[in-house]
Amino acid sequence: MEMNPIGTIHTPYTSREGMPIQPAGGAGIRGTIEVFEEYRAGLKDLEGFSHIILLFVFHRSEGFQLEVVPFMDTELRGLFATRAPRRPNPIGLSVVQLDRIEKGILQIRNVDMLDGTPLLDIKPYVPEFDSQPKIRTGWLEQARGSVDRRRSDGRFISKRKSK
Amino acid sequence: MEMNPIGTIHTPYTSREGMPIQPAGGAGIRGTIEVFEEYRAGLKDLEGFSHIILLFVFHRSEGFQLEVVPFMDTELRGLFATRAPRRPNPIGLSVVQLDRIEKGILQIRNVDMLDGTPLLDIKPYVPEFDSQPKIRTGWLEQARGSVDRRRSDGRFISKRKSK
Repeated sequence: MEMNPIGTIHTPYTSREGMPIQPAGGAGIRGTIEVFEEYRAGLKDLEGFSHIILLFVFHRSEGFQLEVVPFMDTELRGLFATRAPRRPNPIGLSVVQLDRIEKGILQIRNVDMLDGTPLLDIKPYVPEFDSQPKIRTGWLEQARGSVDRRRSDGRFISKRKSK
Repeated sequence: MEMNPIGTIHTPYTSREGMPIQPAGGAGIRGTIEVFEEYRAGLKDLEGFSHIILLFVFHRSEGFQLEVVPFMDTELRGLFATRAPRRPNPIGLSVVQLDRIEKGILQIRNVDMLDGTPLLDIKPYVPEFDSQPKIRTGWLEQARGSVDRRRSDGRFISKRKSK
């Protein structure tokens, strides 16, 4: 199936190395989203939400491997048990803070994606839908508390065609 | 960009009317995910996670309107401030409970999607990445507690071509 961007995400990150690996690592870092003119009417009422879910394309990722060593680990893990960017369908998901919307431009905070990232969808973040109180997190159980201090490196940059 | 399913979600829901509208409404309802053979190696380590994020296609949805009356409201709202299925990129997102994985079949619980839904991605649910403690939820502020009792109706079924 064919997906088409509805906007572009602008952030301070122009390189895939040294980036935060999740919004927690980009705490406070500001970005903007430019929603294309033809979709702006769909932004009505969104400003009431403090947090939004962004679905976007890992546009600099290419191909995938089914086992990867994630940024937060030193062992090979199954790809679907990680948030690594090189995936069969390279869709990223981040919950960011929404500060303001003006003329189709969203001011957001806690960004963890590359500048120029194509946006596929915006959904309101609703704890009753999206948050789970009782959970287990497998291999991430020990490490997940340190996500705010981890940074990306070059490990998911394809050697064949590094952009 | 082109997206291709990595598997199929099976649930008890064969009609778009009377379904739960979020996983909270499908609490306890079991489903299965069949991940296609060629992607199964990527499921390693996933069983350690009690909850997973599914990205899937609203495959019975067609077209979109930028303002809709959501299932949980009686007023027109901007599409991106809702979780309505008819979207420019009809990608659904649900956090479900993972019970077991055997031979590429995932046993899941709290399903809210149609039987036969094409799966695009599986990500581990990690509260430090995906959960936000201090939030505002706009128009949903009053209603969100009742999501477990709401059911879908026919409002997002296209009249032009109802499947």
